Amino acid sequence: MSENNILQTVKKACLAKAELFNLDTKIKNDVLLNIAKNIENNKEKIFAANKKDLENAEKMIEEGKLTRATFGRLKLDDNKMRDMIQGIYDVIKLDDPSNKVLWARELDENLVLKKVTCPIGLIGIIFEARPDVISQITSLAIKSGNAVILKGGKEADNTNKAIYEIIKEAVSKVEEFPYDSVNLVFSHEDIKSMLELDEYIDLIIPRGSNKLVTYIQQNTKIPVLGHASGICHIYVDESAKKEMAQTIIKDSKTQYPTACNSVETVLVNKNYPYIDELKTYLKDNGIKVIENPEKFDYEYSDKILAFKVVNNLDEAIKHINTFGSGHTDCIITENEDNAEKFMTRVDSSGVFHNVSTRFSDGFRYGFGAEVGISTNKTLARGPVGLDGLCVYKYKLFGKGQIVDDYVKGIKKFHHKDI
Amino acid sequence: MSENNILQTVKKACLAKAELFNLDTKIKNDVLLNIAKNIENNKEKIFAANKKDLENAEKMIEEGKLTRATFGRLKLDDNKMRDMIQGIYDVIKLDDPSNKVLWARELDENLVLKKVTCPIGLIGIIFEARPDVISQITSLAIKSGNAVILKGGKEADNTNKAIYEIIKEAVSKVEEFPYDSVNLVFSHEDIKSMLELDEYIDLIIPRGSNKLVTYIQQNTKIPVLGHASGICHIYVDESAKKEMAQTIIKDSKTQYPTACNSVETVLVNKNYPYIDELKTYLKDNGIKVIENPEKFDYEYSDKILAFKVVNNLDEAIKHINTFGSGHTDCIITENEDNAEKFMTRVDSSGVFHNVSTRFSDGFRYGFGAEVGISTNKTLARGPVGLDGLCVYKYKLFGKGQIVDDYVKGIKKFHHKDI
Repeated sequence: MSENNILQTVKKACLAKAELFNLDTKIKNDVLLNIAKNIENNKEKIFAANKKDLENAEKMIEEGKLTRATFGRLKLDDNKMRDMIQGIYDVIKLDDPSNKVLWARELDENLVLKKVTCPIGLIGIIFEARPDVISQITSLAIKSGNAVILKGGKEADNTNKAIYEIIKEAVSKVEEFPYDSVNLVFSHEDIKSMLELDEYIDLIIPRGSNKLVTYIQQNTKIPVLGHASGICHIYVDESAKKEMAQTIIKDSKTQYPTACNSVETVLVNKNYPYIDELKTYLKDNGIKVIENPEKFDYEYSDKILAFKVVNNLDEAIKHINTFGSGHTDCIITENEDNAEKFMTRVDSSGVFHNVSTRFSDGFRYGFGAEVGISTNKTLARGPVGLDGLCVYKYKLFGKGQIVDDYVKGIKKFHHKDI
Repeated sequence: MSENNILQTVKKACLAKAELFNLDTKIKNDVLLNIAKNIENNKEKIFAANKKDLENAEKMIEEGKLTRATFGRLKLDDNKMRDMIQGIYDVIKLDDPSNKVLWARELDENLVLKKVTCPIGLIGIIFEARPDVISQITSLAIKSGNAVILKGGKEADNTNKAIYEIIKEAVSKVEEFPYDSVNLVFSHEDIKSMLELDEYIDLIIPRGSNKLVTYIQQNTKIPVLGHASGICHIYVDESAKKEMAQTIIKDSKTQYPTACNSVETVLVNKNYPYIDELKTYLKDNGIKVIENPEKFDYEYSDKILAFKVVNNLDEAIKHINTFGSGHTDCIITENEDNAEKFMTRVDSSGVFHNVSTRFSDGFRYGFGAEVGISTNKTLARGPVGLDGLCVYKYKLFGKGQIVDDYVKGIKKFHHKDI
């Protein structure tokens, strides 16, 4: 798609936004139901398209241009198809996060201010390999009332296109729903164009490798919801229980070593009595322990841990705030005061006490769906659920009041929360 | 200050952040009280420094390098001094926005998740001319638990330095308060250096001209809280009351024509019966009415209005979403359905019904203090109070739980809000 074409697509999506803003939840759920059914009815079409992508991918693997891991993410099977469809039904069941009154205040008689949630607007989604992302993100966008412009990895072009067409067909059957609010773009140049459209696109959500996320963060003025790296820490305090520390660290590292919420660095208080036993335990569990590595701000994404003995809690906090990525950090201690100090002073989206870092996840938190995990400090932070795709606006209802009367003291505000 | 020096300052401020995160409200209020008293006791020193700046400013006016308006903003008098001191006492009275539990959820027995407010971290403030901004912003930062790095306009260097030294002296007297958390930098190069320190500075708040705000927005990856322009609209619907429309538009334009929440464009439904009378009324009240100007996305900052007759509500909404700045827009109508549609579909931080756009203001909203007005859609939006300087973190309290037990089905989440 040429730069001009993507601008046209984005402009049309922007016009569709306003219509999305006040759609009944029922209409949105009807669209979602149509999408789920249409995917169900067209499974074979999707598998056929996926087969083409897999054949191309095989060639690329032979040429050394694609990894087996990417091939795995690209491949759709019955399980993934079932999860894709179930995912849409799950989103239908979630509360509509838009048009909720957060609070209301009477500024004066007949002058009422309401803070009300509303969709963010137009969201750009840039993803790699996994074609099941389309239906997932599109459902979340539809339910929260946002328009989307999707750009998938070229290795999944055929599958993405098939799923997209099935979604658009389903969307077209609900007349009240703005057809232009869901869009897919194809060519690699479209990423660059998307990143430059900060006048129209309100938020970018990248789904892919650290490299992709970092590239996007460095090449756009649009706010990016996500995290480039997850350098999580566990600090073992003096009073930590021996078995609890071992079990939590093992789970945090080995339960899914490539996950962003896996632990990368263990800091241990010098007075902890079981330091050597802990190291032995970790090694016995297949974890490579690197003591005092040169580089602490590194994500191993493997069964490897950086390990450092620290003098005290303050040193641990300083280490984490210096080398961490603000994702998730945990203290293991029986001392409640130390736990409180750690959890307040460590500047991360998740601060845990006596529990595996792997719990940092939207589904485990009970959000029903996860848009992503954010290490931003001024956007939604931590695991982001459907709520994270909404912002708020202020609605002020009056009867003709003017400011001049309040400036001159003819009238006075009384500011009563209602 | 050299680039190296500013980096040192910022790094020290970052270390101070952690200490700020769990300070008692009492300590923060003690510091604020000290600052208020110390300014009171050193008024003459501040006036003397301001005199020097005013003398330099006079020369710059002669050389055509400074406007009379800037001179006015630069000049401190007894009223501004009193407001400055009173402003600090007002912040002392405000609720501490940090460490508030937004909600708590039991994920499973003995596994409790809390969403808790916390300071954003290190905030960079870049301001022009008005030296009274230092004490105002510093008080808000201290109360919300944020570290600050301030950069004022060079025309106010002497005054800024005097106020800053008085603040630092007051801060130094409260031992528990991290001395390095309040910082002022001087040279013009410091702005450029600040804008590059996205690794350390979490938020930039500009206070000054549209030119300054636009420059900052275009030259940093740090989130910017603010608005470059305020292009506010009033749409006069078919059923609008004659007098109400006249009075609201007059107030919205003339009550303070250079304010960001003043109206710039009036859209009138073609079936509104009093179009000509409205134009005559506005002209009689000293407002220049420009019908169908070439450029609608323009802030006049004067008693000038763009004026356009539209076919219907939809055209008005489309016009506003295309040419507006997402600040504040108002509909005047007796039709509740039209009001609801307008307020939901117009994509602005403030959407008003039958009330002057000038009400869009933190003090009028009852926020107690205003950090600024934001047209961002992923940061704090609209008038931003003390709350807007806080974000949240997730605290998870466990007893040694690991994720593997939940993945294997040995344990199950029950997700009970508590």
